[in-house]
Amino acid sequence: MKTLEAFAPSLRCAAFDFDGVFTDNSVYVSETGEEFVRCSRADGIGLAVLRALGICCVVISTEKNPVVAARCRKLGIEFRQNCDDKVAALSEFLAAEGISMAETSFLGNDVNDLAVLSRVGFPAAVQDAFPAVLQVARWVGQCRGGHGAVREFCEFIAIARQGTKL
Amino acid sequence: MKTLEAFAPSLRCAAFDFDGVFTDNSVYVSETGEEFVRCSRADGIGLAVLRALGICCVVISTEKNPVVAARCRKLGIEFRQNCDDKVAALSEFLAAEGISMAETSFLGNDVNDLAVLSRVGFPAAVQDAFPAVLQVARWVGQCRGGHGAVREFCEFIAIARQGTKL
Amino acid sequence: MKTLEAFAPSLRCAAFDFDGVFTDNSVYVSETGEEFVRCSRADGIGLAVLRALGICCVVISTEKNPVVAARCRKLGIEFRQNCDDKVAALSEFLAAEGISMAETSFLGNDVNDLAVLSRVGFPAAVQDAFPAVLQVARWVGQCRGGHGAVREFCEFIAIARQGTKL
Amino acid sequence: MKTLEAFAPSLRCAAFDFDGVFTDNSVYVSETGEEFVRCSRADGIGLAVLRALGICCVVISTEKNPVVAARCRKLGIEFRQNCDDKVAALSEFLAAEGISMAETSFLGNDVNDLAVLSRVGFPAAVQDAFPAVLQVARWVGQCRGGHGAVREFCEFIAIARQGTKL
Repeated sequence: MKTLEAFAPSLRCAAFDFDGVFTDNSVYVSETGEEFVRCSRADGIGLAVLRALGICCVVISTEKNPVVAARCRKLGIEFRQNCDDKVAALSEFLAAEGISMAETSFLGNDVNDLAVLSRVGFPAAVQDAFPAVLQVARWVGQCRGGHGAVREFCEFIAIARQGTKL
Repeated sequence: MKTLEAFAPSLRCAAFDFDGVFTDNSVYVSETGEEFVRCSRADGIGLAVLRALGICCVVISTEKNPVVAARCRKLGIEFRQNCDDKVAALSEFLAAEGISMAETSFLGNDVNDLAVLSRVGFPAAVQDAFPAVLQVARWVGQCRGGHGAVREFCEFIAIARQGTKL
Repeated sequence: MKTLEAFAPSLRCAAFDFDGVFTDNSVYVSETGEEFVRCSRADGIGLAVLRALGICCVVISTEKNPVVAARCRKLGIEFRQNCDDKVAALSEFLAAEGISMAETSFLGNDVNDLAVLSRVGFPAAVQDAFPAVLQVARWVGQCRGGHGAVREFCEFIAIARQGTKL
Repeated sequence: MKTLEAFAPSLRCAAFDFDGVFTDNSVYVSETGEEFVRCSRADGIGLAVLRALGICCVVISTEKNPVVAARCRKLGIEFRQNCDDKVAALSEFLAAEGISMAETSFLGNDVNDLAVLSRVGFPAAVQDAFPAVLQVARWVGQCRGGHGAVREFCEFIAIARQGTKL
């Protein structure tokens, strides 16, 4: 099994779960049921570097709340939300981009990521992922979700690809 | 006294306090007094599993702010809020469902849960519950309120009932 | 110098700073400058117990944002905010209530509490108060501001007065 | 290379990054994409002391969201946001004030602060800055961004200048 460093040169699409990866898996709820999530400002610089390397970035989330779209639009990355079947959603996205599952990574945190993690070329997990996810991940970050996990993953890829730090 | 593992097969209703169990016991207050609470995305998967097992879930809260209702509606679980008497509120709910107190668990955190904890078949507490609650709980989670405590309880029940992980 | 336990029987008014005592000293700011603060649900039970003991509770804050008023109204306690001179504000409040400074405690966290702490009968501090405040406090809680500090202080008084826990 | 204590007497402008310095580098996002940030109430007292010493304070941020302006207005400090080039933005600000880069400090946290940190008289970093920033900083605080980092820096300057604590 390849390490993330060895896989990096063939990476064409970096896919991510949203809650627990871009966020700390918390949700702030108002009296009317409006939702807010807590993200990290650090992630933007990481994603910009991946884009500069020509790597496609996409969020695949089961969550239906529009907060997912709101954050992805700010970061300028593609997203598919309200996905009961993450494998199908990612497959469809990749087909349109002409990228294979084998050229794709997925950074997840919870058991509803297990199916898609088993299909992509490189399964990865945030530091505070659930045990079942940690077990299948071939790379586990040192950052918790929402605390720089996306930035850390992107920076790792950038260094592996360019031999340079952000 | 039964362990939670031994009690699980007879569990028909899992009752929960709200603040400090579904939340980290914090409340965010706006200039106009609107309230927001911080919950965990992890809890939804746990509750879905209990429902699939046919176990009834209900929140019993003294808090009158509509944020309780907002969160419970998103999670699709029953709730009774603004309850000065949690024992009466839970009794009434269980009577309508045809479930006995003996077949019910309660996961709490603060001293206003003590009366109802003394009446249910299985009293449980989150990791950061107040000392008096920890003292009467027959199961104490490893997760703090709002940080996966509900998910952890549900997962424990599911494993005890099915012998399988989520 | 009396301990808090020895002082408790003569306590008639418990005064508190707001930010850093009822809150974790953070402020959440919106795009339009609206402010939100993070408080603890645990504090309400503590304040209710002090009221039941006939002890007057009041918040004295320099902050002018209406979020102070919003939280105090929910908790049902008196407050004076936008106070450049906390000693004057507390003195005026106590005069109207017929209570002396000597019968009053103050729970603070920052250097703008130093003057009033030097005047009250019992100066106290939260666990994460600034060093200069910790130095003059005759009681320092184990809880941080916004994480149960008010509840802890109230509970300490209640036990000292009644010999019973909440 | 001068220590911050040795540099303090010549300090005429204290410049700061915003996200990760005034905040904990998190951003709270609503369903409509509105952003909120988490700041510390402790910072206000520190900035007031610098102003009293006649030291000019300014925030230089790449972030375009108006939440930066909202917080700076509350604190009463100058700001330049939406700055792709922080060196240019700070230079222009200093020119108008008649202050040189050599008389200026910058407190930063992320790699987009590196260019400006290399130009000012005194580069500083918060405790949880990224490694590349920690490496060039000549002073690293003990406080994390959004948890009193600005207050700590200001207090350090005030003590160095006046020999007195806040």
